[in-house]
This record gives sequence, structure tokens and C-alpha cells, in this order.
Amino acid sequence: MSDPILVEVWRGPLVESRHRGAVAVADADGKLVLSVGDVEAPVFPRSAVKALQAIALVESGAADRYGLSDEELALACASHSGEPAHVEGVMRMLAKAGLDSLALACGAHWPASQAAAVALAKTGTPSALHNNCSGKHAGFLCLACAMGVDHAGYWRPEHPVQQKVRSVLEDLTGAALSVDRCAVDGCSVPTWAIPLKNLAHAFAKFGSGRGLHGERANAAARLRAACAQNPWYVAGTGRFCTEIMKLLGARVFVKTGAEGVYCGALPEQGLGIAIKCDDGAGRAAEAIMAAIIARFLPLEAAERAPLARFVTPTLRNWNGIEVGALKVTEALATP
Amino acid sequence: MSDPILVEVWRGPLVESRHRGAVAVADADGKLVLSVGDVEAPVFPRSAVKALQAIALVESGAADRYGLSDEELALACASHSGEPAHVEGVMRMLAKAGLDSLALACGAHWPASQAAAVALAKTGTPSALHNNCSGKHAGFLCLACAMGVDHAGYWRPEHPVQQKVRSVLEDLTGAALSVDRCAVDGCSVPTWAIPLKNLAHAFAKFGSGRGLHGERANAAARLRAACAQNPWYVAGTGRFCTEIMKLLGARVFVKTGAEGVYCGALPEQGLGIAIKCDDGAGRAAEAIMAAIIARFLPLEAAERAPLARFVTPTLRNWNGIEVGALKVTEALATP
Repeated sequence: MSDPILVEVWRGPLVESRHRGAVAVADADGKLVLSVGDVEAPVFPRSAVKALQAIALVESGAADRYGLSDEELALACASHSGEPAHVEGVMRMLAKAGLDSLALACGAHWPASQAAAVALAKTGTPSALHNNCSGKHAGFLCLACAMGVDHAGYWRPEHPVQQKVRSVLEDLTGAALSVDRCAVDGCSVPTWAIPLKNLAHAFAKFGSGRGLHGERANAAARLRAACAQNPWYVAGTGRFCTEIMKLLGARVFVKTGAEGVYCGALPEQGLGIAIKCDDGAGRAAEAIMAAIIARFLPLEAAERAPLARFVTPTLRNWNGIEVGALKVTEALATP
Repeated sequence: MSDPILVEVWRGPLVESRHRGAVAVADADGKLVLSVGDVEAPVFPRSAVKALQAIALVESGAADRYGLSDEELALACASHSGEPAHVEGVMRMLAKAGLDSLALACGAHWPASQAAAVALAKTGTPSALHNNCSGKHAGFLCLACAMGVDHAGYWRPEHPVQQKVRSVLEDLTGAALSVDRCAVDGCSVPTWAIPLKNLAHAFAKFGSGRGLHGERANAAARLRAACAQNPWYVAGTGRFCTEIMKLLGARVFVKTGAEGVYCGALPEQGLGIAIKCDDGAGRAAEAIMAAIIARFLPLEAAERAPLARFVTPTLRNWNGIEVGALKVTEALATP
């Protein structure tokens, strides 16, 4: 197993580091239109499938029952930066289900946003609300309450919420999510390893609605629209997911996952995208995703330069001096 | 060029990510006793050679002229965490040369120590003193003042300080540090790309004094002793370099560099070590360094378990649940 080098990290005249990886781009029939590296090996998708995990929240009627707004649905799909409006949105979601932050089982960490972390440090310490996954967890809790089941232990693989989520993931990916493919995610919910080709197929279905039954297709469309209209709620200030969806609107859906995973959809093209950087590097996964979008999405003239800055990001040091750049390799070039 | 996989990142039942890399272990004659992957390719050593860069500070007489303490010499070799005593030590170094923090050209960043960053955020913002390289820069400034040259621009490749540092690096590594191997480091000083086999040779000489002229050998011994006696000043609370040197004392010298580089010496064995993780991952470089030490350094019974925890570090999530571990591969096993 040796995936190709997809991204080089240049410093001055030389390549300093190299990132290998694999990429699958598929249509809603599961046909691969691009396959680079090993797209058959199981990959833990981590947070990159939050939007798929959120389908159950919508199609079950829980989102309507608690009157979740589009911002709040975007938070259910988010790895947010813990900025104040993210935290407030998650508190609202919990309150709508009659809960508060004590119900969250995701654990606490400092906001990913440095500005938010510095502001918080002046007066307090982080809670589970600041965890990048708190919106997803609030969605799980809303689902548990709407299902009329005890929300305690909602994060365990055997809980009805996780069983429902697993069933949706199996339907969309076509992969059997067996216990020998299951691990514990950073926020304690199960993460099931799924081949990139299946993840790409799932996101083609998520993006187009094709191959999904009516309620499921409607839920997918509603979540996509919520994210497209509220990209700041999906990540945060200056983040890749936010900036790409701000730039390209509803023509693209992208979502990061830990350990170098990225998933996305190009709804108008009917394509789904799944990326894994072998070594877990997010910086490389972002450049690869930007390169794939540039290859498959017809761009307007004004969009080319802003997108190119994500394909070949400049590296600057602590003094702001340009010291190098990330560059995608020939392995990703248009054939 | 395909370096072997040296570290696997396990999550539950599967490998989630993989790190490739290269390792050279050499004696003071430059003979390789271990060579894994490509040890001939030039690698930017970044902060891993700070102790070699500090040799000029000592052998020039600058350290004696300004009465630098062992803690301060350790800081000159450090990538410190910006904890209060690190910052105070750098201020003392600068004051001894009649300077203050305004002379530092390394740029500012938040302390690498989360506790120090949180404490600082309550009252202020970081300065260049908090930059992990500020001790090295204070050493460069002391050297400039002792040389009687204008300290302005001390970070530029053509400045007498950097020329002297380059000359020491060329002597120890035996590599020609030409302009086509030069890039700008995170703190703006030049970093010259050097093959791992040459870096390992240099650290064997640094660790043993063999092959160095008298003043240079004395300077190396003094810097090693300063770091061995003050490992907290070389990195900080809980950091790998600090913990390893606390555990094993003067029998080992280790120093991290950005982008997955690690260098070290086993003085009693007369060996030098140089590691590069291809993708730049520090987590993998640390596990590799711990594995190399375990292989080449005779250990006392009480040292085995603490060192093993660095060879196979456990991964825990935000709730403290054990979710996986890093494991070094057969490619690093004793033949």
C-alpha cells in the first residue's frame, strides 16, 4: 500500500515535507470519475460525515418539532471554532429540547478560534459548549428527546440515536458498518471506517438527492441549504470550510474531519468527493479539496484567483515573511 | 524516493494514519550504524540544530564575557514553551548584553504552553520573548555584541553572526551550506538543508567531542552539561525533550525541530541521531526518537517503562477515553 504524494510543502528552494493520500470522486450511481491511491481501504471519516449524521435529526421530524433554525442545522453539521455565536447557537438548540450544557457528552476543549480562546481565557475556562462537536451533540440530544428515549448515553454505539445514525450511514455509503470497523471519536461517539469510494458515493447522493427516499432526500437538501446559507456556522472565521462555501455558495458542500479527512459534494455536477491524507495532515487535505473543486466545478472568472489561493497556500513565518508554499503534485493534475 | 512507514497511528481496531520517514545514526567518524530510508537527501534541520548554533556563543567567549548561566545556555539551545521562567531567563540574557526585547527579531507568538498562554491572555498579549526561539536569538545578540559588530540584522544570512554559525555547522556536519540549500526559518534566521547522515555525524561529534578542536569540544561539552542539568529550559513542562533528558540525564541529548525533525546524541555510545518524518509530524518524530534511544542506550530497569510510554504513546480523547496509540513499525525493529 503506497498512496502517491499529493502535496509538497516547499520551503525556499526545496521540498521540506511531503503528504501522501487518496481521493475518490464518484457520481450518485457509485461510478468513480476519479480514483487516486487506495480508495478501497477503510478510513475513519471522523467529523467529515457530520452532515450525514444530521440527516436523522431532520428526517425524524425532530428538527421541526423543536423549531431548529437554519443556523442551528448548520451547527449540527459543524466542526465549529467555539466563537461566541457558535456557543450561543448550541445553547439555543439544547434549550429547545429542554436541556442544557450538562447533557453534552463531548468533553471540553479550548475554542479552535484563537481570538475566542483569548477572550474566554480572560474570564473563564472552556466547557463542552466550546467543543467543536457541540452542535452535532446538541442535534443528537434533540433527536433522542424527539424519539422519546432516555438521552443519557446518547453517544454510545448501542443507543437508539447512534443506531439510527448508523442506519443512515449504511444506507448512504452502502458499506456494512460492523463492530470490527468501529472506533471511538474525539468527542466519544462511534466512528465507523468506510472506504473513500463509498464515502464519495454517499456524498454524491447527499448532494443530488439521487438514490435517497423522499424524506431522506428532503433532509439532505435542507441541510445543504442550511450550510450554504450559513457557512460561518459550519466552521468559523477564516476556516477553509467556511471560506470555500462563502466563495462558491450552494454549488459546493465541504466538510473537514480529523486526521486529514475531507468530504464534499458538487450538487450541480452530481459528484461526491472523499479525501484522506495518509498521515492525517489537515493542511494537505485542504489543498487537495481545493484542487479537486478547481478541476470539477466550472468557475466564474472572479472565483479562480480566490480558489487558487487555497490550492497553493503561501506559508509565512512569525514575522509575516513568505517562506514557502504548499503545492499539489502531478498526481492530481487533469489527465 | 519512498521512505518506509515508521509509525502507525491506531484508532480502535484499525490503523488510521501512517507516518513515513528516515533515520540516520552515526558515530563520530561518520560511519552509519543505522540507516533507514533516504539519509542522503537534504533536510532543513530547523530548531533541531540550536545546540550546534549555540557553539559559537560559547567558543567565542561571549558566554563568559556576559556571565551566562547554565540555565541561560540551555535557553540558547531551546525551543521553549514560553513559560514565565523561560521569558525571564531570556530577558536576563538580553540585559547582560545591554539589550532588551526590542532587539529580538524572531517575531511574536503565543506561548506553546497552554497554561502559560491562558495566564498571559488574562493580562496581555505575547511579545518576541514568548517566541520559542527567543533564547537562541538572545544568544545570537550576545554573540553580536561580544564580536563588536552592529547587532541590527543579526538574523540575516550575510550578518557576521550567521556567517560564524554557518561555519560551525559546516565544520560539524561536513556539508557545504550553499545558497541553493538555504531557506528562511520560522524565526527568520537562515536554515540550511543538510542530509540526515551528516546531521547524525555532527551530533556524534557534538556528543563525544571527537573530531572537534579543543575550544569547540569544550563548548559542546559545556552546552550538553547545561542542557542535561536544566532540561526544563530546553523545552518546558511535559515536553518530550524535557521529559527524556530528565529521565536519562546526561546520557542523552535530544532536540526537536519543526516539520518532524529530531536530532540527538548518546555521548557514552559516541553516537549521533538524526530523524525526519517525511510529512512533518512531530508526534511521529518523537516516537521514532524514543524507539532509537531504547535500541541504542543501555537502560536501567526503572527507565524501561517510562521510556516505553514515549515509544508507544496512548491517544486519549476529550473525555480522557483511550481511543488508540502510536506504534513504531518493524522498519525500526532491532535487526
